Order: sequence, then structure tokens, then C-alpha cells
Amino acid sequence: MTKAADLLIRNVHIASMQDNGQPYGLIENACVAIKDGLISHIGSSQDENVRASAEFNGAGQWLLPGLIDCHTHLVFGGNRALEFEMRQQGKSYADIARQGGGIQSTVNATRAASSESLLQGALKRAARLVDEGVTTIEVKSGYGLDTDTEIKMLETAKEIEKHLGVNIITTYLGAHAVPIEYQDNPDEYVQLVCNELIPRIKQQGLASAVDVFCESIGFSPAQCEKVFIAAQKNGLHIKAHVEQLSDLKGAKLAAHYHALSVDHIEYLSSSDVPVLAKAGTVAMLLPGAFYSLRETQLPPIDALRQHKVPIALATDLNPGSSPIASLLTMLNMGCILFGLTPEEALFGVTKNAARALGLVNKGQIALGFTADLGLWDIEHPSQLSYGMNLVRPTRKWLAGQER
Amino acid sequence: MTKAADLLIRNVHIASMQDNGQPYGLIENACVAIKDGLISHIGSSQDENVRASAEFNGAGQWLLPGLIDCHTHLVFGGNRALEFEMRQQGKSYADIARQGGGIQSTVNATRAASSESLLQGALKRAARLVDEGVTTIEVKSGYGLDTDTEIKMLETAKEIEKHLGVNIITTYLGAHAVPIEYQDNPDEYVQLVCNELIPRIKQQGLASAVDVFCESIGFSPAQCEKVFIAAQKNGLHIKAHVEQLSDLKGAKLAAHYHALSVDHIEYLSSSDVPVLAKAGTVAMLLPGAFYSLRETQLPPIDALRQHKVPIALATDLNPGSSPIASLLTMLNMGCILFGLTPEEALFGVTKNAARALGLVNKGQIALGFTADLGLWDIEHPSQLSYGMNLVRPTRKWLAGQER
Ligand SMILES: [Zn+2]
Ligand SMILES: [Zn+2]
Repeated sequence: MTKAADLLIRNVHIASMQDNGQPYGLIENACVAIKDGLISHIGSSQDENVRASAEFNGAGQWLLPGLIDCHTHLVFGGNRALEFEMRQQGKSYADIARQGGGIQSTVNATRAASSESLLQGALKRAARLVDEGVTTIEVKSGYGLDTDTEIKMLETAKEIEKHLGVNIITTYLGAHAVPIEYQDNPDEYVQLVCNELIPRIKQQGLASAVDVFCESIGFSPAQCEKVFIAAQKNGLHIKAHVEQLSDLKGAKLAAHYHALSVDHIEYLSSSDVPVLAKAGTVAMLLPGAFYSLRETQLPPIDALRQHKVPIALATDLNPGSSPIASLLTMLNMGCILFGLTPEEALFGVTKNAARALGLVNKGQIALGFTADLGLWDIEHPSQLSYGMNLVRPTRKWLAGQER
Repeated sequence: MTKAADLLIRNVHIASMQDNGQPYGLIENACVAIKDGLISHIGSSQDENVRASAEFNGAGQWLLPGLIDCHTHLVFGGNRALEFEMRQQGKSYADIARQGGGIQSTVNATRAASSESLLQGALKRAARLVDEGVTTIEVKSGYGLDTDTEIKMLETAKEIEKHLGVNIITTYLGAHAVPIEYQDNPDEYVQLVCNELIPRIKQQGLASAVDVFCESIGFSPAQCEKVFIAAQKNGLHIKAHVEQLSDLKGAKLAAHYHALSVDHIEYLSSSDVPVLAKAGTVAMLLPGAFYSLRETQLPPIDALRQHKVPIALATDLNPGSSPIASLLTMLNMGCILFGLTPEEALFGVTKNAARALGLVNKGQIALGFTADLGLWDIEHPSQLSYGMNLVRPTRKWLAGQER
């Protein structure tokens, strides 16, 4: 029986990222039909079973799922280039702090910025990701640390969708740092986050997940647990920055609350990996921060593989520890710095990135999945990981809309 | 007296990269006049001493010299993504060699490629550099290793200028690897390079410099010296890949022959640095190869600073050890991996890069210098080094021609 579709893309090789026993979920010489923004049919290139309003000839190029940058902080005011310069000049941390460096400088600039100027800065960075084939970006709050600015950040993030062909997923990261107003009483700030902000963010639909920075310079496991409980109570997903600088057992704690992902995890002990596997929590690696901070402690990759914990990769795009607006660069760094294979790296920005965001119909080219697609003029998908700034999609489709 | 000019750019901050006692050779609130492709005047923003056919308002943006990528191998056939994938999968070098990996695979692909397909591949990579503000690119031969292919590579490189707004400087790197035809008699190949290729390349104007790979897997110091003597006899500049994997004292040898630059130099002994200073040879750092090869031996940066050896930075863009088409990424890697300051990094792709190519009127915004310029919407030039993929020039001028 002939099926009707809005668009039929013929003559492509598909890196479907499905679990079909082939590397990259390969489907050679294929066609893909799109109906109402979803993938409605996958067949051979010469397939006669679909009648579509429009056809596109892929000319033997590769069709990949739209890439997903599943961990960014790309809404922020100012930049930290002068702080970077001072650090490279060998100035001491005390000197830099005196000149107003560190996360507080970004908090100040973000609080002071208008929504419009925040948006303009964010759009520049988001556009760089989109240019590389990214169709979904997660964006966190966390540089406001007061009610108005946190909400301004989340609203600004959502606004990006109106200007660029991209889906934005927002995460509330109130527990990013203790604001100066609460330096002497961080628990009171955690109460504000749990009792006022989280319910309000849920009610206004400003974010789908809640995140924390579990670290001695962030929040203690006990404080993070309060945030997890509030998120759970309010029906929001849980994510956590853990084990980036030390092993506070934050990953285990987050997994206990069924976190979607635990992020950074350089200092995660291999012995805690089975807990992630059991909870279905994604291990999210952020090689840009590892690189920029000259970290040398490697995440427990072998244990993650052994226990089949899904590995995601993201830019962690932020003005302090990962000012890198390139998800393709993360594919290469995932390979060079963490020893991933190009296939693992690509799973990390497609299927496993979708899972880290709780998106059940993104990140694969499969029946019923969202038709966020990129066409690439390459001979093999390993080319996305092999270098830097070498490849770009030649064409993109976003949920059925050509961009 | 009023001076006439073709173009007057007003209202810019200039990172002139002149040695004027200011960081980055800073000239604030300035104007620059261009006449016949050269910088004819630099004054204050409100300067009334120039009458130009056209005026451009820089609106407070930063004017920088066009960037110079002074070491690339960007003309080549094929790519090595599958080899990269095999390596990441843990396959042995023997396995990879059996599948036809290594430089020989690039030589085979380059020999087999038509001039047109070589050009198309090179244009894609060069366009990425140009997009980032690069106005001059050095391109080496060295994947032909036979007369026809080496000449085809150099001609293809020059052809790039007709398609992109960029200057191409070519270097003959016949002594890149011993071709399979001469495995048993490398000295005979060196004779061919010295006695036939170098004179012919000089005569046909195909390159302005001769380069060698001085390494146990390349050519011995004695063989390199023969190449240097032939280059000198034929009036060609000398450059050398040295001390990348071991300390063969290639840098000292090259400096003895007044090489423009010695490149890589991770294994250069600090005690050999004064020789470079005395010869006026540029130390060219290639952090992309350092990164991609997971090298850990750092070049002797402190000694280079101490002896005031000019430091240049380049992509080394090539399909094996540095598949990175981004000079801005090298600025960041120069800082993160080699500890350079953002200012040293920017000197490395402007003034010192020009010097490494023997270009006496490029790489600075100064009277009489070529008007290759980039306009950047930044608050400070450290922003070029601070991250990856964050900034691009908003406008460029190439030797007086707007691009
Ligand atoms: Zn983060
Ligand atoms: Zn090279």
C-alpha cells in the first residue's frame, strides 16, 4: 500500500544511531519519509511505497540525526577574556579576584544585562552550534542566583527558538553557586531554591529539569539532596554536576533520585559506576572543561563501557571553564582526550544526549522519531570526530520544516 | 597638508602589533587610510588630514592585521578518518598499515587525484581559515614525492587565490618522506630533490621556500643539509620540521643556514635556543599536532622568551597529525597547552608569522604595510584566544580590495 508523506529524502546513507547491529546504526542506500514532522518511513533508495508532496535527492550523502548539545550555560552577560589573559600572564588568583574575576563577575554582568542584550549574546553562540548541525540545545540558568535573573535567563533561553532553527530545552540551575547575599547562610538559599523557585519554575513551565553543582565550592551532598527532593516533588527531571574536582559521591546520590544524567565525573570512582547503570542514568562527559582547566584526572571510561552506562558528550559552553561554541570539537576531544571511538562520540551527541534530556523521540533516525536531520557531504561518519572545523551539514531539516 | 586615499576607516581601536610599547601595539580611537593596497596613514579617529574616496565607520570595533596561517599542508587527496577510527578502536599499527594507513595513503590519494579534485578539497579547508580572518596561508607540497605530483600540489595551492580572498605562499617540501620508489636508496631521492626539483621549482616560480622533515622517520641531518645547500644556491628560503619527536639538532643546523623558521621543536634543547636568536630564526609552534598526537613534551617556551626568539603559531593543517582547519583554535591551544599569553598568541599569527614567511610588509598595521585587515566586534583582542569558535571578523579588507 502506498503511504503519503510531506517529504521523501532519497539516495542517502543513514547513520540512524539505532541499535541495529551495524556501526552507527548504518542503513545504506536508503530513503526517509517525513510526515507531520515525524519520520514516517525508512526504506531502500528506490522504494516505490511512498508518495510524497516533495522529494529531495541526497546524492549519496549521509543523513544523520540532528545533533544535540545536552549541557550548556550559553545565556550569560559579559565574557571572561581579560580574566583568562591575567591567568595566562601568571597573575595570582587573589589578583584576579581583586579585579572582579570568577563566576561572580558573570553573575554581576548577567544581573545587570537587559533581556535583549542577554539574548543577542546567546544568539551568537547558539548560531555557532546550529551552524554545525545542532538542532537541540539544553540551556541552564545559574548566573542570576536571584529570582528575577534566574527567570530572565530561562525566558531568554526559550526566546532563542524564535530566532534560530533549533529546539531549546531549559534547566534550572539555581544551585550553581551560593550567591553573595547568602554567603553566611547557604542553607537559607537552598530553602529559597527548593520552596519558592522550583515550584514557581514548574508552575510557569520555565524548565523541564533541575540541576545542581555538587562540590566543595558549590553545594554539599546534603544540600543537593534537598534540591533533588524538591525537584522530584514538583515533577521535574534531575541532573547534577558531580565529581568534577573531587569525589563527594554526588553521582551515587543523584542516581538514587533517578537523575537523567551526572555530568563531568572525572573523579567518579569506578566502583560507583554500577549504580549509574542500575538507575539508567547517563554519564555526561564534558571534555571542553577538562581541556580548558588542564585537568588530568580521566573519567572512568572503561568502567562505563563495561557496565553499559550510556555516555553523552556536550560543550558545557560557559564563560569560565569551557568557552567553546563547538559540539563537533567535543567529538574530537572526546576521542583525543578521553579515548572514545568516533562511534561512541557520535552516540554521545545523538541517542545518548537525547536520553540525558529525557527526550524519547529524538537522537535517532527511526520510525516515529522527530524529523530533526542533517545531511553531510562525507564518506563516513567518523569524519565528524576526526578533526576540527573540517565539516558542516550541507542541509538541515527541523521537525519537518526545511531550514 | 591633506593626503588622498582610497579608503579611510574611522572610529576603530587598532591592535597594530607594532612594537610601540603598548600591549598588542594598541592604538585607541584611531583611523587608518589605505592607498593602492597599502596603509598610507594612521591617525586619530577625528583626523582631518586625509581625504578618501570612501569612508567606513568602524563603530568602535577592533581593527587587526589579517591573520597569517604560516604552516599548512592543506592540499591533499583523501582523508584519514577511517585510520583515526581504527586507532581509537585500539587496532594495532600493523593492522592499520595493512589497511593502507599512514602518510603513504595520503601520497597515494594525492597522486591519484585530479588537479580539480585536489583544488576542491583544498578550497573547502582554506575557506574555513579565511572565514576566521586569515588573509595569508602558507601551503606546502610533500604528498606527491614525485616530480609531477609535487608540481601539481604547488600549482593547485596557488590556484586557491583565484577562488578565495586570500594570499597563498607556497613551500616545496619534497623532503617530507622517502617515497616508496626510493626506500632502498633515500640518498638518491635527496639528489633528485636537490639537483632537479629545487632548480626547476625556482625557475618556474612555484615556491618561495624549501622545507624538510628532519627526523629518524624522515631525513637525517646530513640529508637535510644537502637540501639546505641546494635551496641556498637557488635563492630559496629555508624552513625545517625539526625536533618534533626527538632531538637530532635539526634546529641548530637549520639556523646555521639562516632558516626563516624551525617548526614543532617540542624536543628542542633550551641550550640550543640562543642559536636561533642569533640567526633571527622564528620558533614555530604547532599545538594542533601536539594535541592530536597526545604529545606531552613541551617546547622550551621560557628559553624562547628569555632569548627573545620570535614565536609563531600555525595550524599545521594536514590529514594525519593535525586535521584542524582553525587558526583561532591554535591561539587558544597555544595558551592552554603551551602557556602562551593571548598577546603572544596573537603576535604568533601576525607579526611573527609574517617573519616566518619572509614577508616584510605583512602582519602589522603600520605605514607602508599591506592593507590586509580584519574588523572584529570585540571588547579586547584577548577574546581571540580566550575560547573556541566564539568570534569571527565582521568585515575584511585584502590589500585594498574589500572582500
Ligand atoms: Zn556545566
Ligand atoms: Zn608540517
